[in-house]
Amino acid sequence: MSIAEIGEFGLIARVVSRLETGPTVLLGPGDDGAVVAAPDGRVVASTDVLVEGRHFRRDWGSATDIGHRAAAANLADIAAMGATPTALLVALCAPGDLEVGWAEELAVGLSAEAALVGASVVGGDMSSSPTLTVAVTALGDLGGRPPVLRSGAQPGDVLALAGRTGHAAAGYTILSRGFRTPKALVEAYRRPDVPYQAGPLAARHGATSMIDISDGLLQDLGQIASAGLVAIDVHSDAFTAPPHMRDAALALGVDPLQWLLGGGDDHALAATFPPGTPLPEGWHEIGRVYDGEGVTVDRKPWSGPRGWDHFK
Amino acid sequence: MSIAEIGEFGLIARVVSRLETGPTVLLGPGDDGAVVAAPDGRVVASTDVLVEGRHFRRDWGSATDIGHRAAAANLADIAAMGATPTALLVALCAPGDLEVGWAEELAVGLSAEAALVGASVVGGDMSSSPTLTVAVTALGDLGGRPPVLRSGAQPGDVLALAGRTGHAAAGYTILSRGFRTPKALVEAYRRPDVPYQAGPLAARHGATSMIDISDGLLQDLGQIASAGLVAIDVHSDAFTAPPHMRDAALALGVDPLQWLLGGGDDHALAATFPPGTPLPEGWHEIGRVYDGEGVTVDRKPWSGPRGWDHFK
Repeated sequence: MSIAEIGEFGLIARVVSRLETGPTVLLGPGDDGAVVAAPDGRVVASTDVLVEGRHFRRDWGSATDIGHRAAAANLADIAAMGATPTALLVALCAPGDLEVGWAEELAVGLSAEAALVGASVVGGDMSSSPTLTVAVTALGDLGGRPPVLRSGAQPGDVLALAGRTGHAAAGYTILSRGFRTPKALVEAYRRPDVPYQAGPLAARHGATSMIDISDGLLQDLGQIASAGLVAIDVHSDAFTAPPHMRDAALALGVDPLQWLLGGGDDHALAATFPPGTPLPEGWHEIGRVYDGEGVTVDRKPWSGPRGWDHFK
Repeated sequence: MSIAEIGEFGLIARVVSRLETGPTVLLGPGDDGAVVAAPDGRVVASTDVLVEGRHFRRDWGSATDIGHRAAAANLADIAAMGATPTALLVALCAPGDLEVGWAEELAVGLSAEAALVGASVVGGDMSSSPTLTVAVTALGDLGGRPPVLRSGAQPGDVLALAGRTGHAAAGYTILSRGFRTPKALVEAYRRPDVPYQAGPLAARHGATSMIDISDGLLQDLGQIASAGLVAIDVHSDAFTAPPHMRDAALALGVDPLQWLLGGGDDHALAATFPPGTPLPEGWHEIGRVYDGEGVTVDRKPWSGPRGWDHFK
């Protein structure tokens, strides 16, 4: 059955029935707006949109996978502010001939990824469109802490990473060349494994700046450098390709360091900490902050890809 | 200059420079997330998406107009909960050949409409897409009051309306037949005149239910009826077409009551109040709530169009 046959309201009813609601939701879907707890007296909010053919392909993963990815991209932004996600709102634009089951599975993926951090899908909108598009807004709570901005890095700070890079980029390359294995890398692209807890943990341990690595590690570190008026150096020896990534890179003729330093879709978190700070659980050192500007690798310019521009 | 030439980050920088930031914004655009005041300890959130060809046409209004409309559709949802809007987040999907100026003017319209209620555009995302799409999320504050739900109408309640209906629908019909006048109706379609203040005011005066009339008056009242397990009767004599609407209806062969009762894009607010409640400023009686189900006009079924389904 297509969504045109069932209609907007029929589709909303079906999708809403697939959602689970957590404790932050004071009023869930079904009214003009949702009501979400903001115990802190402030709310963190971020929006990320995924467009078919640009951010996902229906033949590269299930609707549930795409729901997980769309939620993860947004929840990671909240974590990167040092906040705990509370809610997602989802605008789905889809061709009328889309199967109802696809939209339902998308909702299942969104809801399941949100549930990993105690958040819920609380509202949304649907419209027909020639281009399948999923626009998500995430909300979060700072728990009384100041937000961790991109701009706070100081010369001498330690640069640290939580989570992994390069896995989703490797999966993307594998899929785009028509392969389906190694499965672990393809799965990493389909459903990122985001270190959500590491965000608030870094905030509590005095992180001076933080960012969600979504466009590519070096490119996103460039945001930390330019916002903080500092230079950042990444230590390449902090990055080791696991054997299945090395094998895939060899087979595809790619330097795995390009995935590790230029890839983004894993949604790792990068943060800076004052020198001497014991790094909290899940974080490991990958570089240093210096006086100056720009991002270097082992104190040298990097000639490989740095990341992704969504209009280029 | 096209947005593909300037790139995602160049476009974001230009658009952000056009935004004004109000007192509810604790951290504006430019980081992983924005931080918005939620003094009430709760936040109201709603999402509405506009798709080119479905919700707007670039040859029917300026980018600024479309920004106003996209903001209004979302801000009205917040008002219909009885809340005061605080912030908008905007996801823009656009073909790479879109003129940079168009995106900037869109931002100007979004920002200006938000400023009418003291809200600000605090964040967003941009992606290339074959289909021009504007997905907006609005946030709001309840000021310590309970939200006014769709479900609270009681038999005997007075049904009241704030704002106008039919004007935007008339403008839509006029534009879709290739005309450009009467200007007042075309302008009503391009930039709805939303009674934002009437939402919180109705909440303070004890409204038992409320809804933003966005899909069509009778269709949206159907939501009040079904959510509240009541019947709603609309008094047609509460609706009078102004002379320029009567003239346009005559010229186009339309019964103006179809615009007044079936039109939605004006974003009027409908609410129910306990019998005997003095209606607050800006509200006027248009019907009654009864035992039963469904929506009638002058106690009879209505055979004309009731509203809009975005997949039909």
